[in-house]
Amino acid sequence: MSASDQRAASEAVDEARLWQRMMDMAQFGATPAGGVNRAAFSPEDIAARKRLIEWAGEFGFATSTDEIGNLYVRRAGTSDEAPAVTGSHLDSQPKGGKFDGAYGVVGGFEALEAIERAGIKTRRPIEVVAWSNEEGGRFQPGAMGSAIFAGDYLLEDALSAIDPNGVVLADALKQTLESTPGIARRNMPYDMAGYVEAHIEQGPRLENDNLTIGVVLGVQGLTWYRVEVFGEEAHAGTAPLQGRKDALKSATTMVSALEELMTDDSDTVRFTVGRFECGPGAPSTVPGHVLFTVDFRHPDLATFVDLGGRIKGVCEANARGCEVTVERIIYSEPVIFDAGVIDQVRGATQALDLPYMEMVSGAGHDAMHIAGLCPAGMIFVPCEKGLSHNEAESASAPDLAAGARVLAASLVGLANR
Amino acid sequence: MSASDQRAASEAVDEARLWQRMMDMAQFGATPAGGVNRAAFSPEDIAARKRLIEWAGEFGFATSTDEIGNLYVRRAGTSDEAPAVTGSHLDSQPKGGKFDGAYGVVGGFEALEAIERAGIKTRRPIEVVAWSNEEGGRFQPGAMGSAIFAGDYLLEDALSAIDPNGVVLADALKQTLESTPGIARRNMPYDMAGYVEAHIEQGPRLENDNLTIGVVLGVQGLTWYRVEVFGEEAHAGTAPLQGRKDALKSATTMVSALEELMTDDSDTVRFTVGRFECGPGAPSTVPGHVLFTVDFRHPDLATFVDLGGRIKGVCEANARGCEVTVERIIYSEPVIFDAGVIDQVRGATQALDLPYMEMVSGAGHDAMHIAGLCPAGMIFVPCEKGLSHNEAESASAPDLAAGARVLAASLVGLANR
Repeated sequence: MSASDQRAASEAVDEARLWQRMMDMAQFGATPAGGVNRAAFSPEDIAARKRLIEWAGEFGFATSTDEIGNLYVRRAGTSDEAPAVTGSHLDSQPKGGKFDGAYGVVGGFEALEAIERAGIKTRRPIEVVAWSNEEGGRFQPGAMGSAIFAGDYLLEDALSAIDPNGVVLADALKQTLESTPGIARRNMPYDMAGYVEAHIEQGPRLENDNLTIGVVLGVQGLTWYRVEVFGEEAHAGTAPLQGRKDALKSATTMVSALEELMTDDSDTVRFTVGRFECGPGAPSTVPGHVLFTVDFRHPDLATFVDLGGRIKGVCEANARGCEVTVERIIYSEPVIFDAGVIDQVRGATQALDLPYMEMVSGAGHDAMHIAGLCPAGMIFVPCEKGLSHNEAESASAPDLAAGARVLAASLVGLANR
Repeated sequence: MSASDQRAASEAVDEARLWQRMMDMAQFGATPAGGVNRAAFSPEDIAARKRLIEWAGEFGFATSTDEIGNLYVRRAGTSDEAPAVTGSHLDSQPKGGKFDGAYGVVGGFEALEAIERAGIKTRRPIEVVAWSNEEGGRFQPGAMGSAIFAGDYLLEDALSAIDPNGVVLADALKQTLESTPGIARRNMPYDMAGYVEAHIEQGPRLENDNLTIGVVLGVQGLTWYRVEVFGEEAHAGTAPLQGRKDALKSATTMVSALEELMTDDSDTVRFTVGRFECGPGAPSTVPGHVLFTVDFRHPDLATFVDLGGRIKGVCEANARGCEVTVERIIYSEPVIFDAGVIDQVRGATQALDLPYMEMVSGAGHDAMHIAGLCPAGMIFVPCEKGLSHNEAESASAPDLAAGARVLAASLVGLANR
């Protein structure tokens, strides 16, 4: 019974309609280079929210919002039990693409419409949510809406965030909420029976292996360190090498030693030094100061804790006479998704005979926070060359539709569980 | 006869008077932090030049200048043969000290006054020169006055140099020359019998070994390279390490490999990466671009050519999948000073029983250019902690006087040769 409903839901997904809606949404904040700049609580974000509310209205789906502006679209079930929920975010990076986030909302709505058009009744309601401010490009931190919903971050702290132009979040949020006066206000959090989020992979693995679906097992742990090296400026022509305290050479030695620590045969570790600044920066002056960051990620908790815990020691052991400070500025342990949700996604994928792999998400997502509240999982689809956070971000209509089919079937499964 | 004149000249050097004149000169461009900011052809530079001309006038020494503003003070000899010359520069770094350059001019004038007060007659005239714009802090390139004098750089190219405020050198120079209308204009170059320049060491070796005089054998070769590494930006969380083109990791590997190449047991090589810039600079983005500079110096021509010639290959061999460009932007071969001038300086130092070492200059000086025209050499005195190009630059009155004594004796020797 549920299996045939799941199949019917998948079949009702319309590739052309989904693609059309993706392009429709991409007009809000469209950039000349073909990307999207849609900051949280901006006029472009408000326009995207209104469009989602319009779509919901066409089907009589109920819409509501909460204090941080998370926007919910609800299709009723035969009972009022806790809903099955999908979603992602509508805000983008300043030079973002059309698919990161938007796909999880628009694809979620496509799944909802497919279930509606197929006339499928589910015991639980099914909801699509657009979480506020996932990217954190305008107001920090990111994943704000889902983190506040899950109790991982405080609303009152968020309200005082300030954007680069001096705008306070509380004001931008008030304007956003007032722009959609007709919809209900909802308390958070509320009970969810399960959560499954569709997203582009933001990496190259599916494309490289010519696969359509990523069954996501969890999100790898993420930690950031800020390393500062303090040496002594000296004249490049006169200061003997053996007496120098050269912050640049110490820092490069640290990076090399960290790279050795962080290299594994399975290529699972993600280790990046993305910011590296050297002062004073004159060719003939021995650098007295270097600042660099370490971004380290791993899906396995034990390895994550072990390797992460050795970063400070490796830097100190390679200071070569300089002073070094190592500060941990972000720490987020690996998230393991719910086996039941993973089973739903894998089963739906197999039923549709789609080529897939099981994989761990390299990037953070709203699902990380929701996983602390209810059984959660994710569905990945390929993106071209793995590019994301980039105006050239791209995904194919058939892949997006395949993901929506898996999502529709999974939601029907979760809503009847 | 000459030996007793040399001794008499040294003995006539007055430590207190020299120190007073150093402090007097340091008022022009004095900074709150105790340093000097005296850009070439600035009002401060003009004031310093006028002060030197005033001093010369007190003794009836002839003053003259040339088309690039090099300023000459001349004490007549018993003949009109080519003069023995000393000097350095009066301009400073933007955050420079009281001694770099100024000591060679003021100490040179002290030697001239000592010779005059001791009533010593020399066959050749003795001259003190203040070379224009050695530092190159305002108008590039540096060592401009001595390079044009020696034919190593063209006056017409210098005249079109522009400072950061848009002032053209030709205008600033015109103003400088017009500020001292009373003095003669001189053609350049003219014949010199020999040139010896006094300077602070700008390094720590004399102080470390508790020595007073550096008998300078030459100036090490200097070359600069500009290395650019082009990788591929990627998401720190998703891009597998093995497929990355990480410009930062490639660049740090290059720096480590260069450091290995440039390490010698005798600690003679000077190898510095002073500028190192990494883009785009976001902690969670794999860097796609790095720019760094290499400053390499060595006193031995064969080693200088050999190691310098291997820099490009070492960078290319460690590119690790990135593109790399290696451009040589400065190249100046080692200069070996004249054995006869070195003998004069060493002999004068020994006659005064001053502790000394023979050494190679790590930094460039006006003497490098003059060495192409006539027998040349240099005298170094210690500076505190080796600090230079720094407002905290410091030297002691007894050391400065000792250097002036060696200089006075050397000039008498050269003027009678």
